Amino acid sequence: MVRKRIGVVLSGCGVYDGSEIYEAVLTLFFLDRAGAEAICMAPDIVQTRVINHRTGEETGEQRQVLLESARLARGKIRALAEVSVDELDGLILPGGFGAAHNLSNLATDGAKARVIPELVHLLQAVHRAHKPIGAICIAPAVVARILADQGVTVTIGHDAATAEVIRQTGNNHQQSRADEIVIDEANRMITTAAYMCASSISETGAGIEKLVAAVVQRA
Amino acid sequence: MVRKRIGVVLSGCGVYDGSEIYEAVLTLFFLDRAGAEAICMAPDIVQTRVINHRTGEETGEQRQVLLESARLARGKIRALAEVSVDELDGLILPGGFGAAHNLSNLATDGAKARVIPELVHLLQAVHRAHKPIGAICIAPAVVARILADQGVTVTIGHDAATAEVIRQTGNNHQQSRADEIVIDEANRMITTAAYMCASSISETGAGIEKLVAAVVQRA
Repeated sequence: MVRKRIGVVLSGCGVYDGSEIYEAVLTLFFLDRAGAEAICMAPDIVQTRVINHRTGEETGEQRQVLLESARLARGKIRALAEVSVDELDGLILPGGFGAAHNLSNLATDGAKARVIPELVHLLQAVHRAHKPIGAICIAPAVVARILADQGVTVTIGHDAATAEVIRQTGNNHQQSRADEIVIDEANRMITTAAYMCASSISETGAGIEKLVAAVVQRA
Repeated sequence: MVRKRIGVVLSGCGVYDGSEIYEAVLTLFFLDRAGAEAICMAPDIVQTRVINHRTGEETGEQRQVLLESARLARGKIRALAEVSVDELDGLILPGGFGAAHNLSNLATDGAKARVIPELVHLLQAVHRAHKPIGAICIAPAVVARILADQGVTVTIGHDAATAEVIRQTGNNHQQSRADEIVIDEANRMITTAAYMCASSISETGAGIEKLVAAVVQRA
């Protein structure tokens, strides 16, 4: 049996300056349990900031997104710009501030955010090919920015300000709980709020388990 | 219902210079799903080394074990030296090279390894109090070093050299597969091999799910 190949877009390693670690690891865990192959990738760029995760303050260090993301992939990772849509049966974006600070500047520029071109290129190609896209936590807002004015429906839970950013991109927001997923079948888009509103890792895991199953089923 | 409080000893963030991320996160996930409270802790020391996880080479950077471990705990972490046995119903040590390079120098000194005193102190106290101890991957060898000559039985899978190190500490090694656990009931010691021999994250998860259940049941 050929394993379905699902791209996982990482953005560093740590909730405050990179990928949210629990969301990324649980995505990889449920993909593997579902018999799918994860293809981890990250942009080869400098992190916008490095945060002391105990105090929340910037450290002034410089770190590379690709190398920190490699920690989450036990070294098996590719540069995002080198991955082609033809190699993938689907794509998943975990959340964390890395999505809003490294993959894009959504955290500062909202609906006018700039998304890194290699992600814009790959995600648009996956969408055009009608392959499923899963987005977790804040990542659905980044996806909405990339697919501006396409009327895609996503969830980031129930944060009013972020929901408004999504509407400003010309897409739709649907409220949800952390253990739920929202499916836009026409766009093959599956989203879950995870740590946008989850109060525990098991609640986050419940939503991600459903998201991974929905992506793999459509891949 | 009072939640059981299980200490989780971290040693950095990344398999090659800190905690093995998948082992740490899956421990936290299964603890939460089992209704237990995880108390994350790490020593406030400098990492022995920082590894580029893409190339395997040392980077020459300096990082703090406590601050990198904080990434795995979403900031909610305590200094190992400040945690008392009275606050815990059990203790779990995930693996990764951080256990053999930061918590101890097992990677270089084997059965003669020096373990950091704050971990020696806490783990001996937990053992004396007959509270359950779970150790994952290479961590069972660190535990064996701390509990030298006590005839404890642990597993690190089937790596002959590491099994020999454990025997040299005056303890016993029992072979296992990654999806199994070994229980030494007299010592309330539960161990699983995880990435000492696992070939996938789901295999590692299967062993850790069993280990967490066995620790929580005895806590």
